[in-house]
Amino acid sequence: MASYWGQQLHISIFGESHGRSVGVVIDGLPPGEIYDEDLIRTQMARRAPGRHDWSTARTEADVPEVQSGVFRQRTTGTPLAALITNRDTRSQDYEDLAALPRPGHADLTGLMRYDGANDPRGGGHFSGRLTAPLCYAGAVAIAILKRRGVSVHAHIASIAAVSDASLDSVAPDLTALAAAARRGFPVLDPDAGERMLAVIAAAKTDLDSVGGVVEVVATGFPPGIGDPMMGGLEPRIASLIYAVPAVKGLEFGAGFGATLRRGSENNDPPVLLTAGDGSRRIRLASNHGGGADGGISNGMPLICRVAIKPTPSIGKTQRTVNLESLQPEELVVRGRHDPCIVPRAVPVLEGAVAIALLDSWLASGRFVRSADLPAE
Amino acid sequence: MASYWGQQLHISIFGESHGRSVGVVIDGLPPGEIYDEDLIRTQMARRAPGRHDWSTARTEADVPEVQSGVFRQRTTGTPLAALITNRDTRSQDYEDLAALPRPGHADLTGLMRYDGANDPRGGGHFSGRLTAPLCYAGAVAIAILKRRGVSVHAHIASIAAVSDASLDSVAPDLTALAAAARRGFPVLDPDAGERMLAVIAAAKTDLDSVGGVVEVVATGFPPGIGDPMMGGLEPRIASLIYAVPAVKGLEFGAGFGATLRRGSENNDPPVLLTAGDGSRRIRLASNHGGGADGGISNGMPLICRVAIKPTPSIGKTQRTVNLESLQPEELVVRGRHDPCIVPRAVPVLEGAVAIALLDSWLASGRFVRSADLPAE
Amino acid sequence: MASYWGQQLHISIFGESHGRSVGVVIDGLPPGEIYDEDLIRTQMARRAPGRHDWSTARTEADVPEVQSGVFRQRTTGTPLAALITNRDTRSQDYEDLAALPRPGHADLTGLMRYDGANDPRGGGHFSGRLTAPLCYAGAVAIAILKRRGVSVHAHIASIAAVSDASLDSVAPDLTALAAAARRGFPVLDPDAGERMLAVIAAAKTDLDSVGGVVEVVATGFPPGIGDPMMGGLEPRIASLIYAVPAVKGLEFGAGFGATLRRGSENNDPPVLLTAGDGSRRIRLASNHGGGADGGISNGMPLICRVAIKPTPSIGKTQRTVNLESLQPEELVVRGRHDPCIVPRAVPVLEGAVAIALLDSWLASGRFVRSADLPAE
Amino acid sequence: MASYWGQQLHISIFGESHGRSVGVVIDGLPPGEIYDEDLIRTQMARRAPGRHDWSTARTEADVPEVQSGVFRQRTTGTPLAALITNRDTRSQDYEDLAALPRPGHADLTGLMRYDGANDPRGGGHFSGRLTAPLCYAGAVAIAILKRRGVSVHAHIASIAAVSDASLDSVAPDLTALAAAARRGFPVLDPDAGERMLAVIAAAKTDLDSVGGVVEVVATGFPPGIGDPMMGGLEPRIASLIYAVPAVKGLEFGAGFGATLRRGSENNDPPVLLTAGDGSRRIRLASNHGGGADGGISNGMPLICRVAIKPTPSIGKTQRTVNLESLQPEELVVRGRHDPCIVPRAVPVLEGAVAIALLDSWLASGRFVRSADLPAE
Repeated sequence: MASYWGQQLHISIFGESHGRSVGVVIDGLPPGEIYDEDLIRTQMARRAPGRHDWSTARTEADVPEVQSGVFRQRTTGTPLAALITNRDTRSQDYEDLAALPRPGHADLTGLMRYDGANDPRGGGHFSGRLTAPLCYAGAVAIAILKRRGVSVHAHIASIAAVSDASLDSVAPDLTALAAAARRGFPVLDPDAGERMLAVIAAAKTDLDSVGGVVEVVATGFPPGIGDPMMGGLEPRIASLIYAVPAVKGLEFGAGFGATLRRGSENNDPPVLLTAGDGSRRIRLASNHGGGADGGISNGMPLICRVAIKPTPSIGKTQRTVNLESLQPEELVVRGRHDPCIVPRAVPVLEGAVAIALLDSWLASGRFVRSADLPAE
Repeated sequence: MASYWGQQLHISIFGESHGRSVGVVIDGLPPGEIYDEDLIRTQMARRAPGRHDWSTARTEADVPEVQSGVFRQRTTGTPLAALITNRDTRSQDYEDLAALPRPGHADLTGLMRYDGANDPRGGGHFSGRLTAPLCYAGAVAIAILKRRGVSVHAHIASIAAVSDASLDSVAPDLTALAAAARRGFPVLDPDAGERMLAVIAAAKTDLDSVGGVVEVVATGFPPGIGDPMMGGLEPRIASLIYAVPAVKGLEFGAGFGATLRRGSENNDPPVLLTAGDGSRRIRLASNHGGGADGGISNGMPLICRVAIKPTPSIGKTQRTVNLESLQPEELVVRGRHDPCIVPRAVPVLEGAVAIALLDSWLASGRFVRSADLPAE
Repeated sequence: MASYWGQQLHISIFGESHGRSVGVVIDGLPPGEIYDEDLIRTQMARRAPGRHDWSTARTEADVPEVQSGVFRQRTTGTPLAALITNRDTRSQDYEDLAALPRPGHADLTGLMRYDGANDPRGGGHFSGRLTAPLCYAGAVAIAILKRRGVSVHAHIASIAAVSDASLDSVAPDLTALAAAARRGFPVLDPDAGERMLAVIAAAKTDLDSVGGVVEVVATGFPPGIGDPMMGGLEPRIASLIYAVPAVKGLEFGAGFGATLRRGSENNDPPVLLTAGDGSRRIRLASNHGGGADGGISNGMPLICRVAIKPTPSIGKTQRTVNLESLQPEELVVRGRHDPCIVPRAVPVLEGAVAIALLDSWLASGRFVRSADLPAE
Repeated sequence: MASYWGQQLHISIFGESHGRSVGVVIDGLPPGEIYDEDLIRTQMARRAPGRHDWSTARTEADVPEVQSGVFRQRTTGTPLAALITNRDTRSQDYEDLAALPRPGHADLTGLMRYDGANDPRGGGHFSGRLTAPLCYAGAVAIAILKRRGVSVHAHIASIAAVSDASLDSVAPDLTALAAAARRGFPVLDPDAGERMLAVIAAAKTDLDSVGGVVEVVATGFPPGIGDPMMGGLEPRIASLIYAVPAVKGLEFGAGFGATLRRGSENNDPPVLLTAGDGSRRIRLASNHGGGADGGISNGMPLICRVAIKPTPSIGKTQRTVNLESLQPEELVVRGRHDPCIVPRAVPVLEGAVAIALLDSWLASGRFVRSADLPAE
């Protein structure tokens, strides 16, 4: 096993950083869904390298070439396969690294796992480039959710010690989130964004890197979706989020902060909400739970925060061990790398949450097929 | 889907809090493994209710009755099924709750998910009681790992704002961890433990509850085990850890703290270690990665921290909505509950990590069968 | 992996012939379904031993004890676990067999697979007794299908060279099938049944055994359910049918007979059917396909035939090899066994087909929940 | 779910007949295995269209383009993705068929399953063309098995009523099977082959088609591999074999013929075999079981027979219903099609068996890694 996932929506990711292509097969998509090329292009561009100061200089068009599963701009319901050709590969940058495992990378562990047979160029299958097909699959899922009133957004909650404005967990400002996404560097508070960019620039100057936290929020997801225990929304989301290299932490709702509250403060009490037409429905007065109870959606915004470590590839001289001579050696990773991958991770994590929500929805038996939706 | 999990080791959990029994089927266990009843009894006792001030007064012997899969005190390799009979059920405590969803519980979401058909007594399948079979399966896995030199320990890293002594992430003190486990309230620093117990007692007096953080550490796990992306050790562990009710956060290694470091500080450089016999092997100089790179074990201790929210069941008066009258109503949860479930979660989380490690090991094709091990 | 199965409906079977119990966990059942005890009791009784001349003298009440998943006579939607206690075990009958593998059994292969650690008594986990939990799960599925107008029946198509009357594959006579089921020995033609019983009796007299073919037919299953390739109805059904010990062949529709026809004879042409109210709908003029095209139901009766080998346990003296002395030895299987297990396999195979159909239906996203059905 | 499969070896197939490409992702391959291009090319050529009288005139080079998972002519152990570009597509041949479902095809069922959104050109994802990636994956598996002394062969056991010479089920003649494979039309008895070709030619002249039976045999597979019940070799093989369009029957060993034997005749008694060096090992005196007992390999050749229906696409005029006018209509399938697809199915079925065996072997924990094999 490795790079596949899912119950109803089944995702199989393949590719190596310097191979012919990276790509994904998505099996189990509902039929007749709009294949939203604009949305997909936008998400891929947000993740693509070479566009910003804070990104690697490697440039890849990252245009997914659909092989199957889309017909007349709609999903067919049969497997959707797409591949993204690798163009700007400079394997020579990495060749001298074969004997020098890079700290913080999977160079050593990949070698052990695959008896030395795996493709080491640019990290091979362990490269952050493998998040491109995940981002793509996520964009396909986001479009399907969007048509049903579910939105998935994320912002950079912090870079190093600089924090963004905090999000209202009960009524998140979707307009502000959408505006943040359009700004390229997705923060709610542009001033905080400037300070974050300064932190990144300083790290770059020092041939170093920084990490940060991404907060993802999904609204409009219907209550009653998910399953108990290992089938819960959190386990499903977690197993996809932790598939993203560099993720070191994940919390839902109040998360680690909940451990500092008492039960009476942390519980989200049900209250009645009277709608404009006088009808009443139950919602929760607060959202420390982060949108799910017992693994099942409760109608509140689904909120999680993801810790991303500082990019391990840095220009600074580092210690390592030469695997051939079995001697300590100094390493300077040349190649091209990001002083901070947090911004590029944002659309990937949005996508990961969207995939997990869509899979759970499809598995619930309550997903409304495209053919039964009102025409757009 | 719901309560099953795994690739090679396949776990299917069943039961309701006030039903006949809770239990588990473990399919895919290796044959010929010692069925370590002492270890299992110890782990079950650590999780069992009714033993301590900080625990619910519900008393359950929690003796697993093995139905299959064990023969002459060894695993057969065919499915191991065990059930734990529910004895001390007081359903009447909960009957008046049917119309009054408890804040922080799955009462409302379970109702929506199952169209009102699920067993609501004591939370039904969403009860913390369902961690008993998970704890059991974990103890079975711990014994199998133990025979191969892998130890899995956990301690309470914090209760509310009180922290335990911190663990050396490179060379954790296994003797201290084992001693902590024997003390019943597993902390490294007994003084911190006293302060934690005081915090719990104060919450109990106030008919309230507190949460905390559990830190799990596994040592001796061989390097090179795990898979990329969704098959990585972290996704596998995360999908089991998040199956435990009340878990709201999970971090590996430096976790959220890694976002405050620069890459040059956070990377774990490979270094050479010279053994007593003069042989040299590679290890990492630090362990911010928490034991895995690219989802694959790197030979360092596997370390994760788990945030557990304050018990949602509290004696304090809380707001809710009466589902029949659709009117706001005050709720006092009578029943029996823990002012803090963190201590009882410790063996469950140890077990969850053990199961994920064993499953990954079995899937790696590198697990050494009992028949090929030296006799004990 | 071993004894579990499924996508939406997840089945985990456990137990050994002479262990404490055999049983099953069914995860993913829809909530609110009638738990039809009468139907379950009937199916279990049809499979149970000790009732007939053609059956083993081992008597087991085979009353499933529900542990979870049923509340107020309805499925809860959370895992349904049931176990069937083993009572009439005579392990001593088998003890002398430990060194003498029985021809046609899994004695030798089980030993090799499990390094000698598996429970050999009565075949352990390989015993035909493990079809009891499968029969049970099947009965649960049959009841759920039945409420939606789907019926699953089977008859004995042949015992040795004696054939039953053939079934109309386009419009099978459900009344006759139901009557056959009630007769205990389920054949359409009672005269053929008498001849079959004579063949079985003759084999019994000779301390020998005979096999036969069971034909299963499901009607009323909606068209458009199933998936392409490995997700098709046939692969799903086949993977469950072949889980039944003693099954050696399986064919759908015209099956092997289709290889003797030309395409123009074997194709099932679509035709128009005018209903009583003048409305027209499409159906197929013949049913050589057996109810599915491309793995997806086509609205015709789903029909398959299953070849069951003669019971391997026979009283006749047989050759084997003594595993301790490594010498040839003669073997007389004492124990208690069926001269023909075909009749007892009938409800198991009905159940296997029902489970596969229900799983496919649930996975299709088109299953109508109990809450949305008209009240009974 | 649909077109994926497996426990350790995970296969995800995609593509449509007239789309951009068909292909497969194989996840879970062992690392360091020789990527045997010659063997792959041979198997693909045996399946490829346009080479023979009995094959469609559509010509496709069917050269798999490896995207990932192969490095320096060895498997990396990370996902292997390959795609086969569709070149010679004549969609116009099929456009007029959109409203006229072809008898014996998935045109109608696909339409219902996917609400009309699936790609209908040339059968879309239901096309026999999807067996190309399965054949490819099978060839990869065959090469891995071959290096470990396991051979997988198949021959055409019958076309319509013409049968090939029968195979010795205990000691199949591998030389004859290999020679048959090289002859293009794989039969043991060339005279029978001539008569089969005459039957096919006659069907072609009549614008009709014929079917047949393929017999697959695997030798050298180690005993003790497989799992009980749904994890057995037969269920795993069956779920892949029945993924091949046009398969209507499958039997193992004596199959349906076993139902005509008594137990004493059908049982395979263990006997002692003395090797040249005087050592003795146990084998079975006959092979009615077909290589497995209780789902687990027993060291005898694994033998199965697969019934393939006559090609549904025929030039003869057939009845159908016009889906737009809802009137009966006559249909003449133009396009290009095979009067008999049995020969082209042979390498696909060999591959399906190889994949199932390799997956079971990998799951057994007994597969010897390439790094531990002697160098070639």
